[in-house]
Amino acid sequence: MQINMDIIIKKRSKKTGLPPGTLLHIGEKKVEKTRISIFDYDETHVLEKEVKFVEESFPFKDKPTVTWINIEGIHEIEIIDKIGKYFGVHPLILEDILNTEKRPKMEDFENYIYITLKILKSASDNERILSEQISFIIGSNFVISLLEGKDEIFGHVKERIRNGKGLIRKMGPDYLAYTLIDTIVDNYFIIMEKFGEKIEIMEEELVKDPTPDTLKLLHDTQRELILLRKSVWPLREVVNNTLRGGSKLIHESTLIYLRDVYDHTIEIIDMIEGLRDMVSRMFDIYLSSISNKMNEIMKVLTIIATIFIPLTFIAGVYGMNFEYMPELKWEWGYPAIWVVMISLGVLMMGYFKKNKWI
Amino acid sequence: MQINMDIIIKKRSKKTGLPPGTLLHIGEKKVEKTRISIFDYDETHVLEKEVKFVEESFPFKDKPTVTWINIEGIHEIEIIDKIGKYFGVHPLILEDILNTEKRPKMEDFENYIYITLKILKSASDNERILSEQISFIIGSNFVISLLEGKDEIFGHVKERIRNGKGLIRKMGPDYLAYTLIDTIVDNYFIIMEKFGEKIEIMEEELVKDPTPDTLKLLHDTQRELILLRKSVWPLREVVNNTLRGGSKLIHESTLIYLRDVYDHTIEIIDMIEGLRDMVSRMFDIYLSSISNKMNEIMKVLTIIATIFIPLTFIAGVYGMNFEYMPELKWEWGYPAIWVVMISLGVLMMGYFKKNKWI
Amino acid sequence: MQINMDIIIKKRSKKTGLPPGTLLHIGEKKVEKTRISIFDYDETHVLEKEVKFVEESFPFKDKPTVTWINIEGIHEIEIIDKIGKYFGVHPLILEDILNTEKRPKMEDFENYIYITLKILKSASDNERILSEQISFIIGSNFVISLLEGKDEIFGHVKERIRNGKGLIRKMGPDYLAYTLIDTIVDNYFIIMEKFGEKIEIMEEELVKDPTPDTLKLLHDTQRELILLRKSVWPLREVVNNTLRGGSKLIHESTLIYLRDVYDHTIEIIDMIEGLRDMVSRMFDIYLSSISNKMNEIMKVLTIIATIFIPLTFIAGVYGMNFEYMPELKWEWGYPAIWVVMISLGVLMMGYFKKNKWI
Amino acid sequence: MQINMDIIIKKRSKKTGLPPGTLLHIGEKKVEKTRISIFDYDETHVLEKEVKFVEESFPFKDKPTVTWINIEGIHEIEIIDKIGKYFGVHPLILEDILNTEKRPKMEDFENYIYITLKILKSASDNERILSEQISFIIGSNFVISLLEGKDEIFGHVKERIRNGKGLIRKMGPDYLAYTLIDTIVDNYFIIMEKFGEKIEIMEEELVKDPTPDTLKLLHDTQRELILLRKSVWPLREVVNNTLRGGSKLIHESTLIYLRDVYDHTIEIIDMIEGLRDMVSRMFDIYLSSISNKMNEIMKVLTIIATIFIPLTFIAGVYGMNFEYMPELKWEWGYPAIWVVMISLGVLMMGYFKKNKWI
Amino acid sequence: MQINMDIIIKKRSKKTGLPPGTLLHIGEKKVEKTRISIFDYDETHVLEKEVKFVEESFPFKDKPTVTWINIEGIHEIEIIDKIGKYFGVHPLILEDILNTEKRPKMEDFENYIYITLKILKSASDNERILSEQISFIIGSNFVISLLEGKDEIFGHVKERIRNGKGLIRKMGPDYLAYTLIDTIVDNYFIIMEKFGEKIEIMEEELVKDPTPDTLKLLHDTQRELILLRKSVWPLREVVNNTLRGGSKLIHESTLIYLRDVYDHTIEIIDMIEGLRDMVSRMFDIYLSSISNKMNEIMKVLTIIATIFIPLTFIAGVYGMNFEYMPELKWEWGYPAIWVVMISLGVLMMGYFKKNKWI
Repeated sequence: MQINMDIIIKKRSKKTGLPPGTLLHIGEKKVEKTRISIFDYDETHVLEKEVKFVEESFPFKDKPTVTWINIEGIHEIEIIDKIGKYFGVHPLILEDILNTEKRPKMEDFENYIYITLKILKSASDNERILSEQISFIIGSNFVISLLEGKDEIFGHVKERIRNGKGLIRKMGPDYLAYTLIDTIVDNYFIIMEKFGEKIEIMEEELVKDPTPDTLKLLHDTQRELILLRKSVWPLREVVNNTLRGGSKLIHESTLIYLRDVYDHTIEIIDMIEGLRDMVSRMFDIYLSSISNKMNEIMKVLTIIATIFIPLTFIAGVYGMNFEYMPELKWEWGYPAIWVVMISLGVLMMGYFKKNKWI
Repeated sequence: MQINMDIIIKKRSKKTGLPPGTLLHIGEKKVEKTRISIFDYDETHVLEKEVKFVEESFPFKDKPTVTWINIEGIHEIEIIDKIGKYFGVHPLILEDILNTEKRPKMEDFENYIYITLKILKSASDNERILSEQISFIIGSNFVISLLEGKDEIFGHVKERIRNGKGLIRKMGPDYLAYTLIDTIVDNYFIIMEKFGEKIEIMEEELVKDPTPDTLKLLHDTQRELILLRKSVWPLREVVNNTLRGGSKLIHESTLIYLRDVYDHTIEIIDMIEGLRDMVSRMFDIYLSSISNKMNEIMKVLTIIATIFIPLTFIAGVYGMNFEYMPELKWEWGYPAIWVVMISLGVLMMGYFKKNKWI
Repeated sequence: MQINMDIIIKKRSKKTGLPPGTLLHIGEKKVEKTRISIFDYDETHVLEKEVKFVEESFPFKDKPTVTWINIEGIHEIEIIDKIGKYFGVHPLILEDILNTEKRPKMEDFENYIYITLKILKSASDNERILSEQISFIIGSNFVISLLEGKDEIFGHVKERIRNGKGLIRKMGPDYLAYTLIDTIVDNYFIIMEKFGEKIEIMEEELVKDPTPDTLKLLHDTQRELILLRKSVWPLREVVNNTLRGGSKLIHESTLIYLRDVYDHTIEIIDMIEGLRDMVSRMFDIYLSSISNKMNEIMKVLTIIATIFIPLTFIAGVYGMNFEYMPELKWEWGYPAIWVVMISLGVLMMGYFKKNKWI
Repeated sequence: MQINMDIIIKKRSKKTGLPPGTLLHIGEKKVEKTRISIFDYDETHVLEKEVKFVEESFPFKDKPTVTWINIEGIHEIEIIDKIGKYFGVHPLILEDILNTEKRPKMEDFENYIYITLKILKSASDNERILSEQISFIIGSNFVISLLEGKDEIFGHVKERIRNGKGLIRKMGPDYLAYTLIDTIVDNYFIIMEKFGEKIEIMEEELVKDPTPDTLKLLHDTQRELILLRKSVWPLREVVNNTLRGGSKLIHESTLIYLRDVYDHTIEIIDMIEGLRDMVSRMFDIYLSSISNKMNEIMKVLTIIATIFIPLTFIAGVYGMNFEYMPELKWEWGYPAIWVVMISLGVLMMGYFKKNKWI
Repeated sequence: MQINMDIIIKKRSKKTGLPPGTLLHIGEKKVEKTRISIFDYDETHVLEKEVKFVEESFPFKDKPTVTWINIEGIHEIEIIDKIGKYFGVHPLILEDILNTEKRPKMEDFENYIYITLKILKSASDNERILSEQISFIIGSNFVISLLEGKDEIFGHVKERIRNGKGLIRKMGPDYLAYTLIDTIVDNYFIIMEKFGEKIEIMEEELVKDPTPDTLKLLHDTQRELILLRKSVWPLREVVNNTLRGGSKLIHESTLIYLRDVYDHTIEIIDMIEGLRDMVSRMFDIYLSSISNKMNEIMKVLTIIATIFIPLTFIAGVYGMNFEYMPELKWEWGYPAIWVVMISLGVLMMGYFKKNKWI
């Protein structure tokens, strides 16, 4: 249950009373050491390097080429602080970057755009979905991406930059940011696929043999869907705001690509809503199958009881000790009474059958 | 259940990591060989031909006459690619055309309008409704229609072009596009009619003799309605956007016709919502008829049980072995006890009747 | 059930494939022969006549006086066609006029306004509500009204024109149209009143003695409410659009009257929603009264059963055949056991009473 | 039930067929004789008088001082008619004033503002809430208030005018209108308080001892809440429209006061919604307490039955008449069987206890 | 239950009939004596003092430094009155400040902004959440904060002013107001955390051993959530209005901080909605666990009953007193009948097991 409450209530008590803009990492430490890698490219050249000190990335700020600074791990506050100061990012934004419990949002400044999203991952046991935060600072000639944990999904993008495949090397940082966001959203589709398969298996189980365990599983699934919704719903708004914000940092030619991302987020939201409908229908199926089972039991048992009650009465009658009960003396009394009882039983069974009760 | 999940979750994993605009056919191959047919007409002449190579359609691009290029089958990527390049269609749009799982949408470019819709078909077993994608590229003097499968509904339109019936030969490509969309929407009415008939039969069955099978059928129907909704709801927006988009490719005189299509989509949506209401009412009827039946059983059986329990008690009393039970010695004791028991039974029956319990 | 499906699904298959603007009557033929009557008036004179041929109405088009052409019966396509052509009505509008299954709407053209509404009627058996279509073509000096069936509600309006009562003779065709629409809406109030009375009777029945028939009646009522809603809801929009459309055919001085009609449609909608609430509450009452009855039965019967089961046990004990059962030999054993059993029964009854179970 | 239907369906049949603007009183006659009282004041003087003939109020129209004409009773049509004609009120507005079943609304004319509201009253038996209509005609130097019945709530306002307490004598007719409306809204709070107390008592009853009567009472309460909602909801819109309408009759300095009234209407609406939630929760409590009671009965009774059924079986076994039943001959057979039966009973009771069934 | 009704219905009857702007304290007296403390600061100096008479704060009004007048306790009307008059606050606003039952709101005047919010506190028994009102008057160089009770949360802010930590001393009164509001909102997070923990404990209890007490606790929690919602929902609007109001009293540089507060209110609202969902799911869990338990009982008991009923019948048969019952004479009759009965019992148990009924 702990997990559930964590999704709903975000623990912020350690921040209380601190002045705004105080940098404080909120969340788990997901990697041991922050890893900073730099891609610097234009149409004709690419430079790729991993740096030890964040200061090594500073010279790229004023180069005309596109620079992508990819920071994996955000728990080392001084790195974030230095980056923030050098690239002119507002302290409140730095505070947001360090707080891994923010909902996705986009803010538009004069010199940069700040976007924060969630990357979805399957947990190592493949049972749960985890969400990790990523933030982007998009400037006129650079993109800084700050991941909570290790990057596991941008391999294709790096490859494309290295090989100059597609448009990426010909376009600016806005297109790079688009590519990264698109990759994140594409990754949602994969997560959704896996999730869908899990629900499908669960549904089959549910129809065949529903147990209280299935119910627990359903509750877990519902909870994961809540997490998914919380990660994806605001994304729509984020992309839409970027699209309509009219920032001069987003070029006309990138807009059509963003519109494409927007369509994808709509599709993801459609899927989530579809799954939600499905899960709630599964609850209904569970309930109705439980109540069906109960009805089945009640019906059969009641029918058995009902058939034997009149028969027991008859047996009771001839168990009475009256002195003058002529039937008891008859030679064929006993077989006759069996005939009567069996006929009665058969008649009742027939009546039940006729009424489709059994 | 597979079908259900397919409606909700779209498998996109093979696209992950590819640069945007990479052409990739997503969906089933519905025809063996792509078929390209061309209609070229103005008020005075018509040319109709089927071409083998897509390049044969290129000369029509610059003719002042209206050209309709109808492409059945979209799995041959190179054909789409060539068309796209020659007619100046954006790569992302080509990507959308090839992805048969897109939701209906409309996008308005300077030189062309892109519209994608769903054509509804009854499956060959007449049991299920299938949805096939169709895309339109509407230029200033041409319409390119790209169907996922074989065209089965545009026969009337072709006839009208050949014979010059109605306005079609006097108007531009926007009117042609309208005519095609109108035909698709008209076709929805036919599908809805069939679907309605199916639901009607099901309802009668439900009232007469509800079985768990009926429930399964209801669930299937509900699922089909979800598919229908997903195909038709966005259509409203598509037509509305075309109507209000103010594109110079849509002439003033065509708008009133589009408004008519808009009215029809509203009617279709009304129908779908009506059917949804009806199906959910049918669920209620099912549930209440099941519970009625159960109540009926419980009632009759409980009544029988209740009547015999006191009687059995009486029989039990006179089955006791006390030495001094004067009644047992009475000559008329046995008949008297029968009288008592029968009267009691009748009295109880009467009480139940009075209370309208039986 | 047939009726229900007819409300939801409109059969349009015979129109499929025809070019737009093809005139085709959809619906039942409600009168034998189309009846055309003409009112021509200004402040000082009135002319009333019934004409055989529609052409007789044409000369009025160019007169400065206000002309009302009232056409009862729309199944004679050639009449509609002639009128349409002479008065310059768009073919699509003529198509709509002939299709009695259109939802109420208003369209605003340069030279005329087209409005289509539903007139509600009680069926002759007073049991069902029927809806008939009426369309208006409002020009700068004429109003053409096209009714599906016989006119039964405009008597008062005609009287007012003849006598010059009220403003009607002093105002233009927009005021005439307003008066006709107002009459239609006023008529809804009468229908609603009758309907309300029917529901009231049903409610009393429901509370007193609910039977499955009542349930069926409730379902029928709900269905009629759906029909009512479908006729009235779009009306709000129609009146509102006319009000805000800014057409030059509607004079400033008529707007306040239209606002009044608007208020009335809001009231009607309020009533329908009120009735819907009430009917759904009646369903709840039905269900709870059914389940109350069942509970009542179960309770009384279970109590009877429970009292006798321990008593039967006691009787059973003294029916055992052990050789050494001292109680059996006691002279007062038999009466004593009766005392025990009766006391036990009374005690249990008391316990049940104390707990308010009986 | 009659009351309920009256709330939903408004009887308008007597108006059918009359030309618009025909004055007709719809509603009950709440006072015997119309009472007209006039307050005329400015910062330095006050004139208060009651007049017999409405004409006596006419001279005040052109005085620069603020005049409040308070009319109690609106069934005397000729009075309304004269006022309307002299003060230039549109006939349709007069018609609305006379129709006590209108929903609250505000209409803004060049020379006056028309506002109609509902005054809430407790019926004399303190059991039901009644609603009475009040209309205001607010001109540049006069306010005409038209009440359906006797004025019972404006005493404080009159006192303030007489004594010159507060701002009232320094401000114009808009402030007077505000004061009157504010008094009406304040009165709602009192009604809500009483209503809340009634619901509170009902809730306690419900928890302690729910009976079908409580259910009936709940239904009545729900119905009253519907009436309250219908009176108050449109009020929000009325005040808001007055606030934002930008009429030159409402001075800047009065707006802040109107904003205050607006806040109050929001609070009232909040209260009503809160009560609605509460009543529907009370329905749930009722249902669950009923079903709890039923469960309680079923449980206890079933347990009793279950314990005795196996015991009866044992007794039945030793009631069999086999010749060779060794147990029957044993000296301690009878006591032994009692031991067995009592142990079995105790064991079963223990099992039920362990499972928390009793 | 009293508490509940207090949340819904606000007692205003003592205000009825008073002219608007009459100052009247509505609510409990939460502190004995009003405490007035003053902070006066700019970048270089700080003055902190506690004053006895409100007049001592007046000289600060015209100083260029930022002055924060913090008033704890609002029941002494004359203090509020003097402050209001001296600082030029509208009487209606003073009335609102004194009414502790107002919902949060913001009003924007030329010379000052008025904001009223709720501070949440845990009651001393840590069981309930209390809400206290706080109002702000924000001028061009001062902030007046008026608390209903003792200040318990602004300690950190005062510390920051004293030490000059953060931006606070460099910014104007708008930043001070932001800091105070931010502190209030941060405090909500703490309350939410505690509340979340309480709900978590309750949930565990619910799953393990649901009792009617749990149900009562759930109802209480739901009620507290309603209180929370009422305090927090309008806050969103308040902050948003301040953000978008464009008042010249809020500087550009403060806006980003306010946007941050806005994000926090959204997060709080998300949490509350999450908890609401959770509580309503807990109701469902409660209901289903109760019904599960009942089903469990019914099932086991019915099965026991059913097994013994046929056995009792058999025993009854051989308890009959027919003279010619051959079985009774058989030497192995009695053991045989035991074998039959035990086999029958075992068979039935097996059948139930096979069907997963036990």
